[in-house]
Amino acid sequence: MSPPSMMVVTSPPEVHKVVLPPSKTTVQKLRHRLAEIFFPDAPFDKFRNQSFSNRFLLGLQFLFPIFVWAPNYNLKLLQSDVVSGLTIASLAIPQGISYAKLANLPPIIGLYSSFVPPLIYSVLGSSRHLAVGPVSIASLVMGTMLNEKVSYIDQPTLYLQLVFTATFLAGVFQAGLGLLRLGFVIDFLSKATLVGFMAGAAIIVSLQQLKGLLGIVHFTNKMQIIPVLTSVFQRRDEWTWQTIVMGAGFLIFLLTARKVSMANKKLFWVSAAAPLTSVILSTLIVFFFRSKLHMISIIGHLPKGLNPPSSNMLHFHGSYLGLAMKTGLITGILSLTEGIAVGRTFASLRNYQVDGNQEMMAIGFMNMAGSCSSCYVTTGSFSRSAVNYNAGAQTTVSNIMMSTTVLITLLFLMPLFHYTPNVILGAIIITAVIGLIDYEAAFRLWKVDKLDFLTCLCSFFGVLFISVPLGLAIAVGVSVLKILLHVTRPNTAALGNIPGTHIYQNLHRYREAQKVPSFLIVSIEAPIYFANTTYVHERMLRWIREEEEWITKHNGSILKCVILDMTAVTAIDTSGIDTLCEIRRLLEKRSLQLVLANPAGNVMEKMHHSGVLESFGLNGLYLSVSEAVDDISTGWKCQP
Amino acid sequence: MSPPSMMVVTSPPEVHKVVLPPSKTTVQKLRHRLAEIFFPDAPFDKFRNQSFSNRFLLGLQFLFPIFVWAPNYNLKLLQSDVVSGLTIASLAIPQGISYAKLANLPPIIGLYSSFVPPLIYSVLGSSRHLAVGPVSIASLVMGTMLNEKVSYIDQPTLYLQLVFTATFLAGVFQAGLGLLRLGFVIDFLSKATLVGFMAGAAIIVSLQQLKGLLGIVHFTNKMQIIPVLTSVFQRRDEWTWQTIVMGAGFLIFLLTARKVSMANKKLFWVSAAAPLTSVILSTLIVFFFRSKLHMISIIGHLPKGLNPPSSNMLHFHGSYLGLAMKTGLITGILSLTEGIAVGRTFASLRNYQVDGNQEMMAIGFMNMAGSCSSCYVTTGSFSRSAVNYNAGAQTTVSNIMMSTTVLITLLFLMPLFHYTPNVILGAIIITAVIGLIDYEAAFRLWKVDKLDFLTCLCSFFGVLFISVPLGLAIAVGVSVLKILLHVTRPNTAALGNIPGTHIYQNLHRYREAQKVPSFLIVSIEAPIYFANTTYVHERMLRWIREEEEWITKHNGSILKCVILDMTAVTAIDTSGIDTLCEIRRLLEKRSLQLVLANPAGNVMEKMHHSGVLESFGLNGLYLSVSEAVDDISTGWKCQP
Repeated sequence: MSPPSMMVVTSPPEVHKVVLPPSKTTVQKLRHRLAEIFFPDAPFDKFRNQSFSNRFLLGLQFLFPIFVWAPNYNLKLLQSDVVSGLTIASLAIPQGISYAKLANLPPIIGLYSSFVPPLIYSVLGSSRHLAVGPVSIASLVMGTMLNEKVSYIDQPTLYLQLVFTATFLAGVFQAGLGLLRLGFVIDFLSKATLVGFMAGAAIIVSLQQLKGLLGIVHFTNKMQIIPVLTSVFQRRDEWTWQTIVMGAGFLIFLLTARKVSMANKKLFWVSAAAPLTSVILSTLIVFFFRSKLHMISIIGHLPKGLNPPSSNMLHFHGSYLGLAMKTGLITGILSLTEGIAVGRTFASLRNYQVDGNQEMMAIGFMNMAGSCSSCYVTTGSFSRSAVNYNAGAQTTVSNIMMSTTVLITLLFLMPLFHYTPNVILGAIIITAVIGLIDYEAAFRLWKVDKLDFLTCLCSFFGVLFISVPLGLAIAVGVSVLKILLHVTRPNTAALGNIPGTHIYQNLHRYREAQKVPSFLIVSIEAPIYFANTTYVHERMLRWIREEEEWITKHNGSILKCVILDMTAVTAIDTSGIDTLCEIRRLLEKRSLQLVLANPAGNVMEKMHHSGVLESFGLNGLYLSVSEAVDDISTGWKCQP
Repeated sequence: MSPPSMMVVTSPPEVHKVVLPPSKTTVQKLRHRLAEIFFPDAPFDKFRNQSFSNRFLLGLQFLFPIFVWAPNYNLKLLQSDVVSGLTIASLAIPQGISYAKLANLPPIIGLYSSFVPPLIYSVLGSSRHLAVGPVSIASLVMGTMLNEKVSYIDQPTLYLQLVFTATFLAGVFQAGLGLLRLGFVIDFLSKATLVGFMAGAAIIVSLQQLKGLLGIVHFTNKMQIIPVLTSVFQRRDEWTWQTIVMGAGFLIFLLTARKVSMANKKLFWVSAAAPLTSVILSTLIVFFFRSKLHMISIIGHLPKGLNPPSSNMLHFHGSYLGLAMKTGLITGILSLTEGIAVGRTFASLRNYQVDGNQEMMAIGFMNMAGSCSSCYVTTGSFSRSAVNYNAGAQTTVSNIMMSTTVLITLLFLMPLFHYTPNVILGAIIITAVIGLIDYEAAFRLWKVDKLDFLTCLCSFFGVLFISVPLGLAIAVGVSVLKILLHVTRPNTAALGNIPGTHIYQNLHRYREAQKVPSFLIVSIEAPIYFANTTYVHERMLRWIREEEEWITKHNGSILKCVILDMTAVTAIDTSGIDTLCEIRRLLEKRSLQLVLANPAGNVMEKMHHSGVLESFGLNGLYLSVSEAVDDISTGWKCQP
């Protein structure tokens, strides 16, 4: 097949008219715009031209992704799911207990949270590899944000009420974002922000574990690095060597297991089994030497039985509602970001789609239901999902399997954890969060984009020294500022022709590009908005000034025409239109012609509506720079 | 001259390499970027290659623009300046007194403020037509913001201290913005924001003048529309018909004079002379009928003499410092915006440049000096500058002339204002602010850009119903959101070839554009940033899905290659690069080739630094869509 463009190179140059986009009413435009904002993936396309029963089935599959794969479920898939489910259960139980401690909650809440939410997710969720349950970041943030206002030691009931209320509100917020299809809100936590945030949080979490690892009893409630470190060293009298030895031993064991698994993906089960092994081993040690190791603090009594209902503990009034809302919002966003990022990662490895908005609803409903059954905020965990994936999980049945295992634990095995030492939980947490510190990503940010690296630093130090919400807010602010900066100070470049082509390129970048005599061709590489009109105005005048200086110096032919390459001017507003007119007026006074090349559809439309388009007229608009140059210089030759 | 592109249309198609921009060190890049941010107009270029004495002269001219025109000043210019100076003085004296009342200040402060600041501006300012003095908006905002916390009736001294402190801080802020070359900050008050804000403020100001016009004694301190209207109607017992008749009469006179001047620009002196005429007439009426018109409130005693020093009234401590800072910031920004907009308007009419940053310094220093000599915040007034321009002002000598007239008034004529009725001040204010309501601009916003209109409405209703700072903040928020929305949801379009050219255009917009078989050409019209990576990813997959559906339906030739037109992708960040890689990986799995056409310099650079560029290789990058199509389809023909 010969493309059309090749056949016609020999035809005489022809000028094509720049046309307006097909005219639409305001309502049509609004509809199109809203569809692009809220339904970029056109989820309802597949419902078109379908029978009613098909539509019903599609709708059911849309709401409950379980119906997509359930009809084809078979024994072979079940086998894989059982194996992976048991594997992640062995990880989920010790991690659940540990993370609950991180959120200043009784360990049993961590197990409750590993039972109900995974069941709900398995029906609603669209990721097949996500392992659902409590996660370190959300636990830490919830724990510190609430504990700063309400002490979990002095007011345990109020604290618990706030945890469940915040979890419910996080769920409402998450489901709301999904329902309103505002999923793009979480996109504003850029990768750079997250890399910095995760690293900062991991360092704080690890340092806080020194409490358990050193055996300190009195510890700060704060989460900034300075009070935490102060606490560690001020309480040297509370350090106990037995705890330290046991903690260090198991920490080394766990970190070694992690290294082994990282070096060889097939040995993923080493790090997956290590936490439960450590729990069992350490519990046995403490149990058998309990007379000698009484100074090692242990979990103690844990109630047997299923999740008790907790809907009576949700309080949406009183002076702490603001705190619960704020905590819910922050943990909601953070857990959503983690859950969706993890879901997308594994989906892309297996080539299926995870619908962000649907995931938000699934995670949201799972948290709302969880908050009524004694669970705190949960999401998809990166570490457990990786194990799940490596263990061969095929569907969310692995989550059901894990839930069942947790159920059995809750019903029968709770007394076994009585002598589990708290120090082992600290070691498990450190091993889990250490992977969140991603030096390589940070280094890559530095190499590729200095401003991204700055964002990363802001969130890192913000979290370490100020607080999680403020650290995140600063990082998001820097990210947004970066976008605004790009718009406020857009690139402009003078273009030249590449001999032998119709291509006009940056003179500064392409050595072979040549200035076209009597023309100044400038491209503006951003929308022309109120925020940059002054800049564009001044910069254009400077381009012209510099060109004229160049001509005087090099004895070039006099400047007659300025061509603005509008290809990258993807939008314009009223201030921008005024600026274009102003530049045109100024150039006319100097007998210079201003011509626009390739204005985008909506730019044309706005210029048309404001009546400016007509003033440019037929001779002021061209479809490409090359047509503009050809046509105008031909005109000059005809009328010398 | 024949442009190079015309001579070579017949040469065989050739493929040009996409090159990286000339490599620069991080420091060089940073320098270039900072220069573009802070010195887009390259103000130091003219200092290059100059002798020392020339440099000194240029520097002097740069700091004190008076040296630019002073050497060529002559008698003829002086004549024009004297006439225009006297004209604006006749306007400045009644307006000064009125605006001081608007700021809840003694009328004499308004005259003080029309004396010192114009003198300073005439030395430092670069606009030749700006008439400097108190203005309505800044007076209103300062008056209401301070009076909400400190009553000007109960604590007049504290109120005055706060006014001078706020003025000083406004000056510091303004000069600081100029010195740090952060002038673009005021660009964020877009035209749409200002149209709405001005209209809202004009309505509030006019309604507040009902106090004077109706003769009400007890009036609200607030500036929202509801308390103001409530005050007007609750105090019907205080209305006095003599005041109303006099107010209405002079208001009609002033408005008629304004209409006459607007209909015929040559009669500008009618509206220029009207306020002083009204003041003289009304004073005479009240003076001669003072026994019968005792219910009409009058200005009363005004002290004679020059501005007393007020530097001892500046207080930078205490509980009200925050209030003074906030007020200074808001009035500083507002007066800066007005002054610079006015300066630019008249500069563009007369073809000279007004340097924004320099103007900021001039206005800032003038306010700092003003605050030490009993002046409150001043800037360039639109109405008086227009009169100045029309009266033929040539340089800032007209400001000096005006100052001199005010000086004479202060020294000798103050007792004449004793019987001036307050009602006339209200009429003068209403006539001045009514011009700020710009229906036509609002209608144009609606026609051209619905989102701009929304911004305008937000600031209009925000100012009317909430408060000036919040109304402005909301409007700026909406404007910024608009920029972010454009980045978050960029346009994407499928391109087709326009037969007989190398041009590829939007298939939807250009009927003549034709799909190229086996190719899908998509252009993305925004930088690829963290905020839109998810969207770009989903939207690309949808384009491919839709293209494949179209092919199945129309029995087209199978899709083999996707070309991304990157012309409008003016920047990319690390998330964006990851997304491109991800899309490429997904397409490779489906045996589709992904090719980039015309990637911008900095995009290339970032892809190079992240090591992605190499993975695209030579066959994955083309200088234009047309070269990509030609080369790839030639390749297919060679290897079928």
